[in-house]
Amino acid sequence: MGRTLIINVEHNSELIQFLAKIAEENKIVIATFTAIGALKSAKIAFYNQEKHDYHSIPIETPHEMVSCIGNISIKDGKPFIHAHVVLANEAGNVKAGHLLEGIVFASEVYLTELKGLKLDRKHDEITGLSLWNRE
Amino acid sequence: MGRTLIINVEHNSELIQFLAKIAEENKIVIATFTAIGALKSAKIAFYNQEKHDYHSIPIETPHEMVSCIGNISIKDGKPFIHAHVVLANEAGNVKAGHLLEGIVFASEVYLTELKGLKLDRKHDEITGLSLWNRE
Amino acid sequence: MGRTLIINVEHNSELIQFLAKIAEENKIVIATFTAIGALKSAKIAFYNQEKHDYHSIPIETPHEMVSCIGNISIKDGKPFIHAHVVLANEAGNVKAGHLLEGIVFASEVYLTELKGLKLDRKHDEITGLSLWNRE
Repeated sequence: MGRTLIINVEHNSELIQFLAKIAEENKIVIATFTAIGALKSAKIAFYNQEKHDYHSIPIETPHEMVSCIGNISIKDGKPFIHAHVVLANEAGNVKAGHLLEGIVFASEVYLTELKGLKLDRKHDEITGLSLWNRE
Repeated sequence: MGRTLIINVEHNSELIQFLAKIAEENKIVIATFTAIGALKSAKIAFYNQEKHDYHSIPIETPHEMVSCIGNISIKDGKPFIHAHVVLANEAGNVKAGHLLEGIVFASEVYLTELKGLKLDRKHDEITGLSLWNRE
Repeated sequence: MGRTLIINVEHNSELIQFLAKIAEENKIVIATFTAIGALKSAKIAFYNQEKHDYHSIPIETPHEMVSCIGNISIKDGKPFIHAHVVLANEAGNVKAGHLLEGIVFASEVYLTELKGLKLDRKHDEITGLSLWNRE
């Protein structure tokens, strides 16, 4: 186990970039995190398992971020943030998917660094995704 | 890192109050948790980012609690529970938001105490929320 | 605290069985986990709190697994996986519930073993569920 970070994400920051910056500044190479909060807008995505590409879904109104589960690992030598989110509107209705971009209204992140593991991403032929190296 | 608690929540208890009691009894001041289970009913909410108030959404029928992510910190000198939930009905359809109140049918909570951090909430002008004190 | 496992789940494996095998092979008796990824198909369920039975909901198309929260404990002497999932389709719409079965396209699991706790499941009259033994 490594460090534990509790982060109050900056208002108006973009969540993926914000977490990548935190990782770089703290030299975090492997971590897992959960977050809750609210986003002003977002771009989420669905991965087409046959065509091997992401289909983007714009979220243009404010939503509660009711769940954000993700991890940090190294891809192409840099910290890579992988996160999935569930977003709810004022009726409690939900849109969810892979998080491409989220403009933060407010967000609380709980991040756990995982020491002693080496975990690089590399291209996987079968899925077309950058998966953790099984080695 | 502090203590780890695995909690079988009491049938018919209200989840937020139940967790606050656990925190007080165990003198937990900062923690993070996840939970799954089922609720008999609930009250969830959406925060209006412009008007700065919560809009409440009543959930009057039994739902699976498919995700509950939250944390404990200190607000006005007492443990404050902040949790977001995703609830699913018998068709697998979902309502989600900030958890105001949840009557527990059954629930399993995994709670991690975070020692050595001081984290009080105070009013934030920009969002109108009680956010973690940045210092 | 026990071991921490970061698992790249095998393509085409069934998630519940895969995690049970990981638990058996590593002699894990209590653990908690979160996962994200994508499923090719799934079977989820809603528990009827009055009739005390599960109503199954088939998910026959590929979905993002936007949230999977679960735990491992011992039931009838063997590792038992309890997991709830939120699944999203290409429009970002969601189905969610208790996970009975999930065929993995890709999935990243973060599992934390909890040492020093004894946690067996036994039948609970009130809910009709196998809950953690209160002692």
